[in-house]
Amino acid sequence: MTTLRIAGGRVLRPDMTVERADVLVDQDAGEILEVGTDEQSSSSPRSASPHEDVEAGVGDELLEADGGLVIPGLVNGHTHVAMTLLRGYADDKPLDAWLQEDIWPVEAELTPEDIRAGAELGIVEMIKSGTTAFSDMYFHVSEIADAVDEAGVRAVLGHTAITVGKDEEDAEADMQDSLAVALELDGAADGRISTTFQPHSLTTVGEEHLREFVPRAREAGLPMHFHANETEGEVEPIVDEHGERPLAYADDIGLLSPENFLAHGVHVDDEEIDLLADSGTGVIHCPASNMKLASGMAPVQRMLDAGVTVGLGTDGAASNNDLDMFDEIRDAAMLGKLAADDASAVAAADAVGLATAGSAQALGIDSGRIEPGANADLAVVDLAEPHLTPQHDLVSHLAYAANGGDVRHTICDGDVLMRDREVLTLYEPKVRDAAAERAEALVERAADE
Amino acid sequence: MTTLRIAGGRVLRPDMTVERADVLVDQDAGEILEVGTDEQSSSSPRSASPHEDVEAGVGDELLEADGGLVIPGLVNGHTHVAMTLLRGYADDKPLDAWLQEDIWPVEAELTPEDIRAGAELGIVEMIKSGTTAFSDMYFHVSEIADAVDEAGVRAVLGHTAITVGKDEEDAEADMQDSLAVALELDGAADGRISTTFQPHSLTTVGEEHLREFVPRAREAGLPMHFHANETEGEVEPIVDEHGERPLAYADDIGLLSPENFLAHGVHVDDEEIDLLADSGTGVIHCPASNMKLASGMAPVQRMLDAGVTVGLGTDGAASNNDLDMFDEIRDAAMLGKLAADDASAVAAADAVGLATAGSAQALGIDSGRIEPGANADLAVVDLAEPHLTPQHDLVSHLAYAANGGDVRHTICDGDVLMRDREVLTLYEPKVRDAAAERAEALVERAADE
Repeated sequence: MTTLRIAGGRVLRPDMTVERADVLVDQDAGEILEVGTDEQSSSSPRSASPHEDVEAGVGDELLEADGGLVIPGLVNGHTHVAMTLLRGYADDKPLDAWLQEDIWPVEAELTPEDIRAGAELGIVEMIKSGTTAFSDMYFHVSEIADAVDEAGVRAVLGHTAITVGKDEEDAEADMQDSLAVALELDGAADGRISTTFQPHSLTTVGEEHLREFVPRAREAGLPMHFHANETEGEVEPIVDEHGERPLAYADDIGLLSPENFLAHGVHVDDEEIDLLADSGTGVIHCPASNMKLASGMAPVQRMLDAGVTVGLGTDGAASNNDLDMFDEIRDAAMLGKLAADDASAVAAADAVGLATAGSAQALGIDSGRIEPGANADLAVVDLAEPHLTPQHDLVSHLAYAANGGDVRHTICDGDVLMRDREVLTLYEPKVRDAAAERAEALVERAADE
Repeated sequence: MTTLRIAGGRVLRPDMTVERADVLVDQDAGEILEVGTDEQSSSSPRSASPHEDVEAGVGDELLEADGGLVIPGLVNGHTHVAMTLLRGYADDKPLDAWLQEDIWPVEAELTPEDIRAGAELGIVEMIKSGTTAFSDMYFHVSEIADAVDEAGVRAVLGHTAITVGKDEEDAEADMQDSLAVALELDGAADGRISTTFQPHSLTTVGEEHLREFVPRAREAGLPMHFHANETEGEVEPIVDEHGERPLAYADDIGLLSPENFLAHGVHVDDEEIDLLADSGTGVIHCPASNMKLASGMAPVQRMLDAGVTVGLGTDGAASNNDLDMFDEIRDAAMLGKLAADDASAVAAADAVGLATAGSAQALGIDSGRIEPGANADLAVVDLAEPHLTPQHDLVSHLAYAANGGDVRHTICDGDVLMRDREVLTLYEPKVRDAAAERAEALVERAADE
């Protein structure tokens, strides 16, 4: 057995306590083997330097976590990773105008090579900020899958289908693509890729297409990922057309189930929260995007109180504008208090929970917790910084004071993806240069249209 | 003349455009001498290495800004810098309970040595995140002044006076202290320290004391800094007692004037906004603190539209939980949109403006702009990071994607305080260790009480 020992640090446990422990990883299985307490660790010999050959079980690769905090790799539950190419391209506009005037015209120019470059940029950014898994919604998905494969992260991918505004043939083909891509890519990248069927939203996919394809996706065993209740403006048309609130309509269609998850859930009433809780449907909260597009404040504490599975996502870089999940944790805690008008709402541990166990549960991956048997998806946060001093409460620091730049090492599926801030699986300068060049050419092409 | 050339970077100009330019600094005067465009720069010889002796005016110290963006040093308009000792000590509680149950009992135990250690920690944190000036409200102020002097930053200091809950003698003495400290420390640290008279707030200082001391402070030529309209709960008691809204009452007392500024201004109505605009009183917006304590959303866009001088502050680290002004810029843009229910409100350039020219104007210091004659208070942001790629819009990146860890160099009053992330004026590891030790002992003392 090939093992990795993350040694000398403190460890965030699933109950949000912190203890001094080494984490021993089975690299062949990509799983956590053991979380050794101080006593256990001190009694077992440790290899003194990286890559030193020692007996199996003692740790043949060593990752120093001295003075650091080992946390579950963060799970970005909803993003459009290739949109890093549009970071800062069009800010400070409301959702509809922003999509129609700025984002969609440029997205129409995206080539598969652009998507690959944008995905690599976003993945490098996530690795550098301690995110080991993400759930994506986009197109040219095989390019994103290749980037995931090469970079070593974990991902839940899919092709997003839109039918509104398309002729019947194109609409049907898009829905077919979403099914086909999900079936084809499931299990790719040595099992690190799983997939979802992705009707874009309840307003951008027509009812007849939902009624045809949602049962087909369910029969095929595919989880589903869609946008819902993001803005106030999308609620009323659904009520007008279908005579019920969006999530009651989604329930009728068959979209609510424990395997499925929706992004946003900002404008949900108490009955819809109950529907989410009763059906086990996950909600991916995207506080930065909801603030930046003035969409509103999701009732996160009410959802947690009702027993809804809530995860956390950055949304695309164009509405955030980065993929740093530490920002998102802080935003979730901050905005959750404002939404509840209660400073005790969405406490630090709850917010950290959203980005780890919450997102992982919504996405159906066994990550987000440091326990034997779980995926060895981990990050080590360096605590020797003024903004993380003193150390009254490390969970508070994760929620309110840390940021992605504080991450020292990132591990996914048992493999070290970043060591001492150097990304090992992709060559960062090349990724940055390629993305910058493609982004520039892209907006020039769009301007010429 | 001793000069410093910040060479090879792009520069953020006061109109929020970005151009390729060197910045030449007169270190003796602590002022910006010249902002050279690309043509000017290429025609003037540059010293090839730092500290090389060359003719005066060519630059005898060189700071490389290649691939970076030179910005005005950020101005933290409202903080309690020594509260870094309480970072993460008590989170997720409403303002009143948090102050009375957690913060004030511990603050009662603070020694001058604690204040010094906390101030040094906070100042190192600010230097590392590109903040060159801050406005502080606390006690044992001479300790903070000594830390400012040693660290080389700029500060507007003062002793905060509270009279409610004290006997007459103590109350009077506290107000006297606030006057005396402001008069004594003004101009300290080679002129980098200016001061304010500081009645804590409109509810924690009695009317008779305000009516006695505010005119005395004005006669002494002292600007004033106070808390106002932070929570909804503090508005009603003022209306009940004085028959008018808080800022009408503040105006009656003589607290509104162009030299003065208040922190928060969350719950202000249109008439109060007009009072602020007409009087020229500055408002320091503290979005993170307002979110974390669930105080509410300040109407920043409405204040800007009315012509109010709005700056930006972190508040103390216990309600933030860091002193990174980049977080604050992002929060101001994000929360400003939600408050206005308009995604175009508090645009990126506006938010960056709050943290630079806005705060500087409120505090009465000639910083926050890169122009000849202004204070040479600057920061260089490193752009070679995935989360700052591509570069469609660097002002957008400052507002939405950059964080304090992206700052490469920090300059104040013409002196380099941090070079390549190494703080030169204080020894960071010692500052961190001292603060950590004092913080631990402090909460132990408080627990024993």
